[in-house]
Amino acid sequence: MKKDIDSLMDASDVDALLVTGSARHNPAMVYLTGGAHLTKADLIKKRGCAPVLFYSSMERDEAAKTGLETRNLGDFRLHELQREMGGDILLATVERYRRMFSDVGVTSGRVALYGKIESSEAYALFTALQDALPGITLIGEFETSILLSVMSTKDEDEVERIRRMGQKTIEVVDMVADFLTSRDVQDQVLIKSDGSPLTIGDVKRRINLWLAERSAENPEGTIFAMGHDAGVPHSSGTDSDQLQLGKTIVFDIFPCEPGGGYFYDFTRTWCLGYAPEEAQVLYDDVLAVYKQVMGELQAGTPCMEYQQQTCELFEARGHTTIMSDPQTQDGYVHSLGHGLGLHVHERPSFRTSSGEGDRLEPGVVVTIEPGLYYPQRDMGVRLEDTVWVRPNGEIEVLVEYPLDLVLPMK
Amino acid sequence: MKKDIDSLMDASDVDALLVTGSARHNPAMVYLTGGAHLTKADLIKKRGCAPVLFYSSMERDEAAKTGLETRNLGDFRLHELQREMGGDILLATVERYRRMFSDVGVTSGRVALYGKIESSEAYALFTALQDALPGITLIGEFETSILLSVMSTKDEDEVERIRRMGQKTIEVVDMVADFLTSRDVQDQVLIKSDGSPLTIGDVKRRINLWLAERSAENPEGTIFAMGHDAGVPHSSGTDSDQLQLGKTIVFDIFPCEPGGGYFYDFTRTWCLGYAPEEAQVLYDDVLAVYKQVMGELQAGTPCMEYQQQTCELFEARGHTTIMSDPQTQDGYVHSLGHGLGLHVHERPSFRTSSGEGDRLEPGVVVTIEPGLYYPQRDMGVRLEDTVWVRPNGEIEVLVEYPLDLVLPMK
Repeated sequence: MKKDIDSLMDASDVDALLVTGSARHNPAMVYLTGGAHLTKADLIKKRGCAPVLFYSSMERDEAAKTGLETRNLGDFRLHELQREMGGDILLATVERYRRMFSDVGVTSGRVALYGKIESSEAYALFTALQDALPGITLIGEFETSILLSVMSTKDEDEVERIRRMGQKTIEVVDMVADFLTSRDVQDQVLIKSDGSPLTIGDVKRRINLWLAERSAENPEGTIFAMGHDAGVPHSSGTDSDQLQLGKTIVFDIFPCEPGGGYFYDFTRTWCLGYAPEEAQVLYDDVLAVYKQVMGELQAGTPCMEYQQQTCELFEARGHTTIMSDPQTQDGYVHSLGHGLGLHVHERPSFRTSSGEGDRLEPGVVVTIEPGLYYPQRDMGVRLEDTVWVRPNGEIEVLVEYPLDLVLPMK
Repeated sequence: MKKDIDSLMDASDVDALLVTGSARHNPAMVYLTGGAHLTKADLIKKRGCAPVLFYSSMERDEAAKTGLETRNLGDFRLHELQREMGGDILLATVERYRRMFSDVGVTSGRVALYGKIESSEAYALFTALQDALPGITLIGEFETSILLSVMSTKDEDEVERIRRMGQKTIEVVDMVADFLTSRDVQDQVLIKSDGSPLTIGDVKRRINLWLAERSAENPEGTIFAMGHDAGVPHSSGTDSDQLQLGKTIVFDIFPCEPGGGYFYDFTRTWCLGYAPEEAQVLYDDVLAVYKQVMGELQAGTPCMEYQQQTCELFEARGHTTIMSDPQTQDGYVHSLGHGLGLHVHERPSFRTSSGEGDRLEPGVVVTIEPGLYYPQRDMGVRLEDTVWVRPNGEIEVLVEYPLDLVLPMK
């Protein structure tokens, strides 16, 4: 949680954080500013001190809205520096950062870097900055970071925002279910009111519209994958496919607050009208594992134990998993879930490869999403809910929704 | 244009490009893959060769849809490498990149880095990769790059996509105008059908909905700024403000294709019902400069000449500009425009600080957006259209729309 930031910086021997880039769709900057209409900003947080936001003059009102201590980047006179540096904008920018650090009292120590920006620019800038500031050590972190650790546990306000996004998600899911089951059917294919076949593209357009009506953004798109596509976990589905009865449809939806705020993440697998025997069998296996794992989640347990357990449960039911064959594309082929917040995938991780790994600490918000995939048999099943480990250790599914496979046509 | 990529790599003595990250809302990856549902991918393009896309196994179908030559990242067995490296995921990832480079025949030379990713990860990964690969020199580029140069001129297909986004933009702008002028008015304030005052938040929600109806995304938000806010160029407006007659409203809208495709960028300034004398005078000055500069645009001219001219024209009309006072917040305070494409701001740049700078080459798509800002007087005016310099040098406004200041109430 945000309140832990100084102690985690201390534990990692980091003296300051430098966050760069936009304050939209940029999790680190959204986290520390609360989100703002800042197209290009810098934020420096010294350990034990409040963050200082550096803004472009044209965005002074937007910067002020954050309530943070602010500095006008214009006062650092980049263009004068550029003239002094013989026109070299990189050297001038490096000198400006040196002055910005100095302005907030960072003149030595270790500075960790954050912010989603162009790697071209990041590499040019930060290697030049490191050369120019021998007293400061710039720190990059790979796959883990202080800020990701801080963000992995949520305070109640963050959980409420995730839950509200979940409620909007469920409303849209319910509208999709209602919309699909109200269609006429011809030759096993759903029909629009104009008599033409309903396609996945049609459904996705409605999803985006219904999300927009609820002020939700959908930057990562929606997975609405039928038949063969349902058998490939990250296949987003084929827009031109006509919706057919009796096919497994993996519907995975992960919208976020406007401007790149908190996400929700949710999956159901549906068969319209009826489920063929082998789809039902596959679904029953996933549902059984979903229920067993959900029932056993306990605060403090290493996440990878649940991944291991999920593999064992699926293997016991006769499915290949990545435990017995890391390259398999049939059976259970991914990890059980992931942290969820300002990133659709964040810490904790359920991967067994991350060593001792992350735990289900009180405060984490994670997805639990077992699935089985058989692309050659044109089917896949995944069930996903988002759960919060409450401060007292209780496990709570943030938004409940029926798990049913078959959506009967009305 | 994309066809120039090898010659520009040659001119910069660059042997390969490495692009990392998602294929959504990541301009470099969208540009070279055509956009795809790839959450994490790598693309290596060797000079003179077609790009090779490295995908995660779960996204194999999405990777195949790009039509590019592909490799399955699973075949590089990261987790085995990690075990061999004593569990160090960074070292394992570095070794995987070494093998990926080798796989496509890049074993020495200069490799330029692209892709919008976390700077924490970029700095950790690329400094470690550079240490591990002494035969290869990794290149970061600051404020300019090979790919930004390539992207700065558009082929006809790209221009058509920008134009189509422009047509959707104009449709929404027209709906907003119609919606506003159809409201009842009480005490100079627009009223909703339920009798309560119409707010800027209400208008923005409608804008997002009407964009979603047209399958447009709005990741950067919309500027709808009235009165004082209109006097601050990047103020996005205040959601709780009630819409009043006779105030300048700067309406700057810049949506993009779903998943982070091509943007459009468009601004009008409106006064609802009537314009006070001093708003009209300000508008007349901006319109006069808009028309004069638009009339003089000529293929091949350095963009900064138009910025200089715009400053001179505004100064001649009695306004302060950043030419005479770089720190001014009154008058003309920004640059005349910018390139537009997969970034809402890209090359060419109109800034006078970028030395000799960019030219209006045939093929560029740029915004032209003179404006005047007087926050103390609670007003601002900006007019912006997007123009294409056709291959034959003709200047074309991509989508025409009336420039009127006053929207008479119906």
